[in-house]
Order: sequence, then C-alpha cells, then structure tokens
Amino acid sequence: MAQGTPDVGDASHAAQTAQMEDYRKSIDNLDSALIAILAERFRMTEKIGLTKSAAGLAPLDPERERQQFENFRALAGSFGLDVQVVADVMGRIIQHAKNRHEVLMRGG
Amino acid sequence: MAQGTPDVGDASHAAQTAQMEDYRKSIDNLDSALIAILAERFRMTEKIGLTKSAAGLAPLDPERERQQFENFRALAGSFGLDVQVVADVMGRIIQHAKNRHEVLMRGG
Repeated sequence: MAQGTPDVGDASHAAQTAQMEDYRKSIDNLDSALIAILAERFRMTEKIGLTKSAAGLAPLDPERERQQFENFRALAGSFGLDVQVVADVMGRIIQHAKNRHEVLMRGG
Repeated sequence: MAQGTPDVGDASHAAQTAQMEDYRKSIDNLDSALIAILAERFRMTEKIGLTKSAAGLAPLDPERERQQFENFRALAGSFGLDVQVVADVMGRIIQHAKNRHEVLMRGG
C-alpha cells in the first residue's frame, strides 16, 4: 500500500489501477498488431513452402536461417531489446513455419 | 526440377528463385515490424512491472492471462491461423514479460 492516510492510499490505488488498465489496453492493441503481422508472415511462408514443395527444394535452408538470426540480433540491438528474448520468440515463429513446410513436403 | 526442356527448366528455376527472394523480402519486412512491436510491448510490460513492484502487487495475474489467451484464440480464428501456434508464440512472449516482472519484484 502507498504511504499516507487511507484516503491518499485509496486515491493512489485507484490511480495505479487506472494506469495499469491503460498499459494493458496498449498491450492488447499491440498483441492484435502482432497477430495480424503473424497472419501475413504465415501467408508468405505458406507460399514459400508451396514453391519449395513444387520445385523439390529442401524445406530447410540453414544459410537463410543464419542470415535471419543475424538480422534479429541487429534489430534487437537497435531497439535495446534482449537479444536472447528476440532470438527465442522469432525462433519459435520460424520453427512453426518449418514444421508446416515439412508437412507440405510430405504432400500435406 | 521443373518439367520440359533444360531451357524451360532453367527459366522456371530462375523464376522460382526470383519468387522466393520476393517472398523472403516480405518476411524480412514483416519480421522488422514484429520486432518493433515487441519493443513497444516490452516497454509497456516494463512499466507494468515497475507499477506492480512499487505497489507491492503480485507479478502474476491469472485472470488477466486467461482473458489474454481467450483474446488470442479469437484473433487466431478471425485471421484463419492455427490457434495452437498463436497461443504458443504469444505464450512465449508473455513468459518473457513474466520473467522480467519477477526480476523487478526482487528489486531488479
């Protein structure tokens, strides 16, 4: 609880609650944006998977992946983000695309 | 390789390569957008963590988290995305924010 009389504490608590609600609204909006971009990203990786499958190309491309992670590290640095966190989240997204490419390669 | 004469095959291969490069350019742009939004999301969760820490509030809020995942499922559905994939990626992002909140709660 905040310092001061109960009234001040209540006012402070109400202000904190309002502040938290405000931050959470931003987070919900940002999450909607993240998911919308993920939708477009998976639409693109689906096309890549179909192109690779039709051309008989391997679903995995280690050199491309190496370049992507190099780019993620650079972006994380420029935004002041934890490089490990960005690599973990982006790696997870890439893993889902790779899983889907392997399904497509098997004729899925 | 594509069907047809070697010339047609080469032309087809060149077209496929150009197409793949085009898709990959889109993916790189989308990834920059994802990371930029992640930066703003972590900026907001940092503020939440500091507010919670200052107010002595618990770093975790199961009811808020339940609402978030309900929202993710609805968004995944509206974008025609795999609900499990969206829940996995967003869960990973939330986990990193929670880890950070626990660090802040221990005094950063």
